[in-house]
Amino acid sequence: MKTLITGGTVVNATGTAQADVLIDGEAIAAVLAPGSQLLGFDVAGNVDRVIDARGRYVIPGGIDAHTHMEMPFGGTFASDTFETGSRAAAWGGTTSIVDFVVQYAGENILDQYNLWHQKAAGNCAVDYGFHQILSDVQDSSLTAMDELLTEGVSSFKLFMAYKGVFLSDDGQIVKAMQRASENGSLMMMHAENGSVIDVLVQQSIARGDTTPYFHGTTRPWQAEEEATHRAIMLANLTGAPLYIVHVSAKQAVEQIALARDKGQNVFAETCPQYLYLSLEEQLGATSEQWGDFEGAKWVCSTPLRSRAEGHQHHMWQGLRTNDLQVISTDHCPFCMKGQKDMGIGDFSKIPNGIGSVEHRMDLIYQGVVMGEISLPRWVELTSTTPARMFGMYGKKGVIQPGADGDVVIYDPNGHTSIGMGEGKKNHMNMDYAAWEGFEIDGHVDTVISRGKVIVDDNQYLGTKGDGKYFKRGLSQYLI
Amino acid sequence: MKTLITGGTVVNATGTAQADVLIDGEAIAAVLAPGSQLLGFDVAGNVDRVIDARGRYVIPGGIDAHTHMEMPFGGTFASDTFETGSRAAAWGGTTSIVDFVVQYAGENILDQYNLWHQKAAGNCAVDYGFHQILSDVQDSSLTAMDELLTEGVSSFKLFMAYKGVFLSDDGQIVKAMQRASENGSLMMMHAENGSVIDVLVQQSIARGDTTPYFHGTTRPWQAEEEATHRAIMLANLTGAPLYIVHVSAKQAVEQIALARDKGQNVFAETCPQYLYLSLEEQLGATSEQWGDFEGAKWVCSTPLRSRAEGHQHHMWQGLRTNDLQVISTDHCPFCMKGQKDMGIGDFSKIPNGIGSVEHRMDLIYQGVVMGEISLPRWVELTSTTPARMFGMYGKKGVIQPGADGDVVIYDPNGHTSIGMGEGKKNHMNMDYAAWEGFEIDGHVDTVISRGKVIVDDNQYLGTKGDGKYFKRGLSQYLI
Amino acid sequence: MKTLITGGTVVNATGTAQADVLIDGEAIAAVLAPGSQLLGFDVAGNVDRVIDARGRYVIPGGIDAHTHMEMPFGGTFASDTFETGSRAAAWGGTTSIVDFVVQYAGENILDQYNLWHQKAAGNCAVDYGFHQILSDVQDSSLTAMDELLTEGVSSFKLFMAYKGVFLSDDGQIVKAMQRASENGSLMMMHAENGSVIDVLVQQSIARGDTTPYFHGTTRPWQAEEEATHRAIMLANLTGAPLYIVHVSAKQAVEQIALARDKGQNVFAETCPQYLYLSLEEQLGATSEQWGDFEGAKWVCSTPLRSRAEGHQHHMWQGLRTNDLQVISTDHCPFCMKGQKDMGIGDFSKIPNGIGSVEHRMDLIYQGVVMGEISLPRWVELTSTTPARMFGMYGKKGVIQPGADGDVVIYDPNGHTSIGMGEGKKNHMNMDYAAWEGFEIDGHVDTVISRGKVIVDDNQYLGTKGDGKYFKRGLSQYLI
Amino acid sequence: MKTLITGGTVVNATGTAQADVLIDGEAIAAVLAPGSQLLGFDVAGNVDRVIDARGRYVIPGGIDAHTHMEMPFGGTFASDTFETGSRAAAWGGTTSIVDFVVQYAGENILDQYNLWHQKAAGNCAVDYGFHQILSDVQDSSLTAMDELLTEGVSSFKLFMAYKGVFLSDDGQIVKAMQRASENGSLMMMHAENGSVIDVLVQQSIARGDTTPYFHGTTRPWQAEEEATHRAIMLANLTGAPLYIVHVSAKQAVEQIALARDKGQNVFAETCPQYLYLSLEEQLGATSEQWGDFEGAKWVCSTPLRSRAEGHQHHMWQGLRTNDLQVISTDHCPFCMKGQKDMGIGDFSKIPNGIGSVEHRMDLIYQGVVMGEISLPRWVELTSTTPARMFGMYGKKGVIQPGADGDVVIYDPNGHTSIGMGEGKKNHMNMDYAAWEGFEIDGHVDTVISRGKVIVDDNQYLGTKGDGKYFKRGLSQYLI
Repeated sequence: MKTLITGGTVVNATGTAQADVLIDGEAIAAVLAPGSQLLGFDVAGNVDRVIDARGRYVIPGGIDAHTHMEMPFGGTFASDTFETGSRAAAWGGTTSIVDFVVQYAGENILDQYNLWHQKAAGNCAVDYGFHQILSDVQDSSLTAMDELLTEGVSSFKLFMAYKGVFLSDDGQIVKAMQRASENGSLMMMHAENGSVIDVLVQQSIARGDTTPYFHGTTRPWQAEEEATHRAIMLANLTGAPLYIVHVSAKQAVEQIALARDKGQNVFAETCPQYLYLSLEEQLGATSEQWGDFEGAKWVCSTPLRSRAEGHQHHMWQGLRTNDLQVISTDHCPFCMKGQKDMGIGDFSKIPNGIGSVEHRMDLIYQGVVMGEISLPRWVELTSTTPARMFGMYGKKGVIQPGADGDVVIYDPNGHTSIGMGEGKKNHMNMDYAAWEGFEIDGHVDTVISRGKVIVDDNQYLGTKGDGKYFKRGLSQYLI
Repeated sequence: MKTLITGGTVVNATGTAQADVLIDGEAIAAVLAPGSQLLGFDVAGNVDRVIDARGRYVIPGGIDAHTHMEMPFGGTFASDTFETGSRAAAWGGTTSIVDFVVQYAGENILDQYNLWHQKAAGNCAVDYGFHQILSDVQDSSLTAMDELLTEGVSSFKLFMAYKGVFLSDDGQIVKAMQRASENGSLMMMHAENGSVIDVLVQQSIARGDTTPYFHGTTRPWQAEEEATHRAIMLANLTGAPLYIVHVSAKQAVEQIALARDKGQNVFAETCPQYLYLSLEEQLGATSEQWGDFEGAKWVCSTPLRSRAEGHQHHMWQGLRTNDLQVISTDHCPFCMKGQKDMGIGDFSKIPNGIGSVEHRMDLIYQGVVMGEISLPRWVELTSTTPARMFGMYGKKGVIQPGADGDVVIYDPNGHTSIGMGEGKKNHMNMDYAAWEGFEIDGHVDTVISRGKVIVDDNQYLGTKGDGKYFKRGLSQYLI
Repeated sequence: MKTLITGGTVVNATGTAQADVLIDGEAIAAVLAPGSQLLGFDVAGNVDRVIDARGRYVIPGGIDAHTHMEMPFGGTFASDTFETGSRAAAWGGTTSIVDFVVQYAGENILDQYNLWHQKAAGNCAVDYGFHQILSDVQDSSLTAMDELLTEGVSSFKLFMAYKGVFLSDDGQIVKAMQRASENGSLMMMHAENGSVIDVLVQQSIARGDTTPYFHGTTRPWQAEEEATHRAIMLANLTGAPLYIVHVSAKQAVEQIALARDKGQNVFAETCPQYLYLSLEEQLGATSEQWGDFEGAKWVCSTPLRSRAEGHQHHMWQGLRTNDLQVISTDHCPFCMKGQKDMGIGDFSKIPNGIGSVEHRMDLIYQGVVMGEISLPRWVELTSTTPARMFGMYGKKGVIQPGADGDVVIYDPNGHTSIGMGEGKKNHMNMDYAAWEGFEIDGHVDTVISRGKVIVDDNQYLGTKGDGKYFKRGLSQYLI
Repeated sequence: MKTLITGGTVVNATGTAQADVLIDGEAIAAVLAPGSQLLGFDVAGNVDRVIDARGRYVIPGGIDAHTHMEMPFGGTFASDTFETGSRAAAWGGTTSIVDFVVQYAGENILDQYNLWHQKAAGNCAVDYGFHQILSDVQDSSLTAMDELLTEGVSSFKLFMAYKGVFLSDDGQIVKAMQRASENGSLMMMHAENGSVIDVLVQQSIARGDTTPYFHGTTRPWQAEEEATHRAIMLANLTGAPLYIVHVSAKQAVEQIALARDKGQNVFAETCPQYLYLSLEEQLGATSEQWGDFEGAKWVCSTPLRSRAEGHQHHMWQGLRTNDLQVISTDHCPFCMKGQKDMGIGDFSKIPNGIGSVEHRMDLIYQGVVMGEISLPRWVELTSTTPARMFGMYGKKGVIQPGADGDVVIYDPNGHTSIGMGEGKKNHMNMDYAAWEGFEIDGHVDTVISRGKVIVDDNQYLGTKGDGKYFKRGLSQYLI
């Protein structure tokens, strides 16, 4: 299959070009000056399909580097399977996801790794890779780091919260970081002080403060700032590169910025929810169906933060100053009925997570419309830097010859209404939309994954299993 | 003329690609997967010339955004004319320069602008653009800013030093910045506190401390840090974007980093001399010919800084942290005989400047070899970011269709010895080499300017006047 | 005259003591355990006067280190003479003032110094010393610094604003600082960028923005922050200790804190107006008599700052963190009629200044009531540190034997209403009260100056000429 | 007993006074202008003893707020009992100690508190108070905090290191801090990340790096900086005031300074060893008797730090900038024979601690001689601030009426040689002197404790049991 995309504005991380893009088979074969020909050779006439992209952006497919498909949690599972979740990603212009293999404390890492392959294989709409979660780090965890690296898993996530489940103590973290420093892999960190949070949660419940709002108040910015600083200092001690996931507190960004100013290899992502949603809105959320439990829809960790304190504004700023380099979703959806509702009367039992994998490209494009970021920065934050950060660049994250034919045609004159109802967009397997009511001044028109058009004209054209596993190399962002 | 560069490693700012590059006429027509063909079409067979770049880097031509060709200074002129200087640039893989139109206090700006066009037209080996120096800002200067913008001059340089010659006082700077804030142009700043320096110089001379070393001691880091902070705060007040030229003090970098952390549009360049050379070496410099006046060879402003204080190390760090975004040369050569020697017995009479336009690409590539920066960062610092910063991106600074055919083939297995003697490289019009003795683990093999090979196999193949003036747009680096 | 103050709570800078205080002649002779006796000797029976201070605070007399009595300005004079101003100080519990000898550019410094002695001699109600203003620093200024030091003038104030009147350029400042660094004197600085302000004022007037509110908007925080940083860096270069006067911008405090953290000898004062009053109130000020010119009452430099931006809150914090060490008044009153009204239609013609010398001790005590500072900190900020900073400690600023008998008895159960009307307190020579309407939960009961009761029971008991000149030594605050 | 000290220079925290001091019974009765009389009454003729202090300093007795007398540790006890240790304190001009009641995890707090009273009662040479150590905080610990407050124990120390022995996790720390925030007590913190240190120690031993030097390398500055930041953030969250003990890393001081700049109630002490001794010296230490185990003499925690990294210099700076407010000793001596030597072959078994209680006043006075701090700052750091910080001011820490008659007469013209040999000073119960070879340009001549001369003319004149327990109030340093 040969496809020529003509007349569009190719957007890469450093700027734009008026150029045609030729995809031959699964890969980009050429980027050409517009005009559908080369040295007199009629390119358009020698392809299977020509897509006219005039007036539209031609961008590398989105990469969501933080998803949790069918993640097991408290006896239930995140409501999107690899099938439903990756298909929703495709709908949203995301052609690669990096999902987290979950190892709970006590489980065998490689068994889990294989299990995740089983879950994903043959089910995905788009390409996928894996990060590995390491819980309660043991010597075997360190061995697994080396082994998984050969499998294309080059990033490992630790937790400073969730004692007995995910948490590694600081000594364990140091051991894993020492290994990362040696083998070149990237240390990812859930940076919240779980020990403090556990006390605050217990006290809140004991006081009778049990509604979803108190999920946020019991995970104060200090718990995130502290853990962020701690992770940075342990990385400083060991020489490991560090990537902080789902940053939401402005004080955490400040810690990251300070470390980066000194030249330490510290990186961080934020998520759309921390750019747009707030604790105040969660407090005010109510509905006929759920009453003041409505706020459970946005229970995630790190939590939504106070708009009055200015966190959201600061996140946008951090994206501009490059103190935040990546936007992921932390996609981890749960339905209200039968899942979130386990936490009625006790917010600590609400499964944590928001479903966003479908909307990330749109939501961040809206930041371009709002003047928060530039057009190339949109591509850099959602595709190019994730690719470089996680060892996929060249194949992913850029429109250039040799890259996979992962291309999205985005219409800046289109419009997208997000939500559950008629004429609204929500393909994730959820019984509500976390982004209900959001309006986007743009539209994902065509999504091409390794040369195959899988979404076009508001239709899903792909097949379960289109997506393949990609092995990742070392982070290309490190010096 | 159609040229195909095959088999090389194309290096752009975000990473590399194995790709062929087709230049058709003056522009890049295509970037192609390697193999010299497209959909069966024999590309190699339909071009005039095929360059085999296997094992070598194919990079966008270097952009030196800070040169002073034949700059008038104290009755003499910088020793490189546009002809000799731009040819030396070509030799070094730099295919674009942005030179400063000099307006001394009292001179007519547009007259000077036209004069600079006269000097350059028909003489340049590579393409050129202009920044405009504005001295002693008047209402007419503000008008000129608007006019020159339509001429493709989108950046204006002010001075906080050189009273009566270049200096604008803070009120004048504010007025120019207000205009920049309105018309979108970029404010460039020579950030040294001239009032303080003038006193220190006078005192030094009076004490009998007259050798070239005291040029450095009388321009202490405090004078640079202070002026840098002041420029940042005036930019903060007016909303103007700011670009600090030739940063050499680590404390200045810290001020820039602080402002950038807060989201202010502050940018900065450093130069090779601040990465490699030091005040201590200047102090120790001596020769049979010049005695302790030898140090005059490296008298430039801002001055060389103390290695013991760690400035050089901090400049490399600033390049990694992106607190410094550009490397220019501040190319402004003077011969020792008949020019620099005017300052024997009084360092303040030594014409300020170092000649480096030829060696920038090599010297910074050596930073890649030393592990200070990555390969894509080399291209970003020397070509892509200058292009974006100064409104040339798309045409310059990137290997992509539509860009000018400014391409350098760089051999990482080659070697370059810099200096005046046999087998050494120095094509600038100087009677000494500021970089004498520097050895580079790489080599500029082929230089192509708008599709024409002007340097190849250690031969200059171009013609005087190959280079053309380019109009620049607004900075593409600003949000 | 021997006076025993019994039963009170003596408050010094580090804490309190229940103690009696014996003043013999002009000096404190003893501080005694309460009980009016010593080793069986009946102290109370051997003095001329016993003051029962039970339930009240016994504090060292206030020191206002920043006043401008009868200061010449634009053809008029500050409305308080040394007689009226120092008497108002006495009313308010301030027993020492340090006034500024004014040298305008071109005037002879020592002539001015002698003139100030003539103005003050025989007229003052409380003791006084002098700082010397140095304008447009010349070599003769440096000589004068050495000479005045022998006269007990150990601090010299420079201006970074008011070109042609007060301003010294940075080179001149460096020269004065070099001298201060050599002779041990303290450099005081009016830190506002006058060059920038002059442009903004001119533009504001030209736009028709001429009311008093625009005095504030044309002296933005950036102009203060910038000059503060610049002064600090010049002091860093020269090694001179530095004292910034009348700090009002939080960003200036941040610069001061940064320098202090690094161990630089940088000190600063703020004034009551920057703790309590705001730009917003000035904007809203209106009256039947003055209309929107009402705001002229609070035109001073540095200007009142925005409450929305949090400057006032930050000033209190700076007092707690010791980044601000002294509270002075910058007392410089002008009447509305015949003085301030010169600026109707052009705020730049309004004489700058507020009258506060009488109210400082009360206004800052209210900070104790509000919980902003502690009781000992009140004494430290208003008396002990000014004494140490300006070379008077031992004689002034502390209740201990050998100190001058400058003692205030302050009633925390008293009340003071400030203002012009019946039952209100305002003894300064002004036709309005800048602090109209302020209510203080405390009262200055008795004021003793060198052993003489000059205020008691709401009566002035002193005589013109009670106050004497004191020579000051070097700052005792410096290491 | 009535004692008059005449002719001396009284030094308080804010400055000096020429004054006589009368002690009547146990308390200071008066501070008098020099001359031995009051209003004609012959004071000198009515006392039991007159001490001529001409040419000498009269200072409030030293307060060592951090001692560990006969502390149980690993089956042994710190070698100084309350008797020997407090007597050594007396020899050194320290008239008050605050010792730590040790509660190991699992022990009953109040039992331990009572046990400490038993140890100390009747044995001390000088007055003493107690801090309480809380290990592995439980609900009963919180109750104990309230109870002990009524006993005059107003400060509680937690540990972030020594798992299973002292350590409380972050949740436990938060609970204790919440209680401190409520009851006004002061939270003290041993701020080192024990979890990290445990790993590094284990790895070092496993590598065969077992000599005392590796005690320091396995407790890197990052472990201290991190824990310091964490403690600050937990205090920020809970509103508790915080006091960091034995700070030795410059990066920890920077964290403290940042928090203080923002107005948080964070305080800290350093100790003489961190001002004078270094890791490099420990590395180089060797002796005939102990070989490379010689370095065990200075094994303490936090450890000695690298001089090349500048920690010692930064500690002095922190004392000047008031980012460090107190100097204590962390006195915890162990003999080399039979105690320290348990760690031959395994540094982790060396009892941690240095004996300094006798030398603190001398060692810090030497800082005055060296120009590091001023004379009043010496008194402030070693007596006045400890008194204010720990709720003793008024009784302790100042020369004023009503204060305990704790007075030291210090001769700036005397000399003290510290060490074990002939003519050297070392009265602590140790078989070596940690400060061997230190020479002090001053001498503790006379020590008076609550009116009784206990040291004079190089003779100990006191009796076991002179010292009494003092109840302490809340910290007077907090706003």
